[in-house]
Amino acid sequence: MTTLKNDLLLRALRGEKTERVPVWMMRQAGRYLPDFMKLKDKYSFFERCQRPELAAEITIQPVDQVGVDAAIIFSDILVVPQAMGMEVQMVEHRGPFLPAPIKRASDLEKLRVPDVAESLGYVFEALRLTKKNLDGRVPLIGFAGAPWTLLCYMVEGQGSKTFDQAKAFCYTQPETAHRLLQLITDTTIAYLKGQAAAGADVVQIFDSWGGLLGPDDFEVFSLYYIRQIVAALKEQALTIIFAKGAWYSLEEMAATGAHGLGIDWCIRPEIARQLAGPHVALQGNFDPAKLLSPIPVIRKEVRAMLDAFGEGPYIANLGHGILPNVPVDHARAFVETVKNYAYEPAR
Amino acid sequence: MTTLKNDLLLRALRGEKTERVPVWMMRQAGRYLPDFMKLKDKYSFFERCQRPELAAEITIQPVDQVGVDAAIIFSDILVVPQAMGMEVQMVEHRGPFLPAPIKRASDLEKLRVPDVAESLGYVFEALRLTKKNLDGRVPLIGFAGAPWTLLCYMVEGQGSKTFDQAKAFCYTQPETAHRLLQLITDTTIAYLKGQAAAGADVVQIFDSWGGLLGPDDFEVFSLYYIRQIVAALKEQALTIIFAKGAWYSLEEMAATGAHGLGIDWCIRPEIARQLAGPHVALQGNFDPAKLLSPIPVIRKEVRAMLDAFGEGPYIANLGHGILPNVPVDHARAFVETVKNYAYEPAR
Repeated sequence: MTTLKNDLLLRALRGEKTERVPVWMMRQAGRYLPDFMKLKDKYSFFERCQRPELAAEITIQPVDQVGVDAAIIFSDILVVPQAMGMEVQMVEHRGPFLPAPIKRASDLEKLRVPDVAESLGYVFEALRLTKKNLDGRVPLIGFAGAPWTLLCYMVEGQGSKTFDQAKAFCYTQPETAHRLLQLITDTTIAYLKGQAAAGADVVQIFDSWGGLLGPDDFEVFSLYYIRQIVAALKEQALTIIFAKGAWYSLEEMAATGAHGLGIDWCIRPEIARQLAGPHVALQGNFDPAKLLSPIPVIRKEVRAMLDAFGEGPYIANLGHGILPNVPVDHARAFVETVKNYAYEPAR
Repeated sequence: MTTLKNDLLLRALRGEKTERVPVWMMRQAGRYLPDFMKLKDKYSFFERCQRPELAAEITIQPVDQVGVDAAIIFSDILVVPQAMGMEVQMVEHRGPFLPAPIKRASDLEKLRVPDVAESLGYVFEALRLTKKNLDGRVPLIGFAGAPWTLLCYMVEGQGSKTFDQAKAFCYTQPETAHRLLQLITDTTIAYLKGQAAAGADVVQIFDSWGGLLGPDDFEVFSLYYIRQIVAALKEQALTIIFAKGAWYSLEEMAATGAHGLGIDWCIRPEIARQLAGPHVALQGNFDPAKLLSPIPVIRKEVRAMLDAFGEGPYIANLGHGILPNVPVDHARAFVETVKNYAYEPAR
């Protein structure tokens, strides 16, 4: 096993002091990088996910080109519904499309908790190859969608602003919804354990649509399942929960035992720290649209963010995925500003 | 001038005790009502807005059919950009489309602060007619979009999940953005004063996209302008600010002097009250998707909401607009449950 040359991310997640703040960006392996776009023109979305040498290459691009402190495996949260037996299409300019969404109890019969080694082995293969090619330069992050967010797509069949059909499904057929959520959870636990075994040092659970639920429903339809996942992964990997918009649950999310909590730009770091308590690492929370600002503005705003996060365990990141139209030198300015920052406590 | 037979809403907004909680629903005049759909089949969107007898009829439908404690004039926030000189189309199943959006400083030359009596007189006419036909049954609410939310559409040219182009416009051309926001603000002040003069007892400012901005940007690009509007309306009407998702600014919004603050379902009523302070009326915050639940569940959840809001000045409402596929008897169950509720302080 290779020793990591840069383990800032892991130490921050363990709550240890680090000589500087680690930094990476959600969706950093992707559409804003010209070298990614070249591969995108040649291979379909799922080809890029399923061919380990392509996924590994894409995963390492931002380490080489932008200088981030962690690699996150190139994949998609919808590989899980796919492995469970649903058809998932990626439609250009439109996003994911699931032609046969779940609408009633009988639709669950089409689903299975798959043998992940068989149906998602290509992700494990990509992780192993990436780990090897990284050669200990930075840690490797694996990920999965939170069960609630996957349910959103599996029921709605496509993206949505508000996922009302998914919510209505939960409100009118709660028993079926919970059966579905448990099937997804069981699959996700096996999947993330496999990722850890294949070399992921950290796994992040993306609950992109967690914030569409109010506090009570978030507990019932989302956190209940995330908690199972975090508990199951305890021995194998460090865990980060990113439930976009679910600021109201930071205290409860911290209590799951996750090592890190992602936050978006709609909560002040000071308040997030108050709610989450002193121990968990916070991760975020730069507004992705702000990376479109002129570079001097980016530098100033990144420093203000770092000041606001202060001294607790912290990982600099965006508050959501990087936008495809961000110039690479803007992304680099973000990363460099974090790397050059030295925290000076206010007197 | 007719005396109001039901002035619960006005008294709650003035912070007075009311014998029961007043209730209305955002977008209550609209798509979930079969009688509205009949008019929708016959007349185009802007025809319905611009013909006072149609707008008045649609406005009063939910008072007659669902029993709400206030009427809100049937119109759209985009009549303001239209009056300022922009073309606005309403495209079925797609939403608003502005074919010539604002992209740079020179585009502002196409815009004007209009004579509202001339360009928006049809709204005033609709308000006068509605007021007359209501005959004092319930108060009448007027409204406008917040300048930030209107900028979103005027720059992006259509709806969006994240309005990144609008945000990038603000971040890269802040001076032009502020000139545009001030033009919208000046128009909106004249427009809402006209609405008050035409009979609106209350005006609500809808900042549907306020919550896409973080706390600092919300202050700079949104609240700075809302504050001007609230101050200008002070003598003429009671004011409500509804900035969806902008929970982090409740304290600052309360400090504007607005009489009411709308909140969505992603914040617990107790926390909203803590942040907003004891005096301002809170309005909300039932998850609109929850109206798709079975009626007994709706009744139970509405009572839980009313319990949570407790004794402070309060107006029951949804946390966002009613969904088009809500059965009318579900909307009625919402309203009736509020009307039949008697607050019992916990011992």
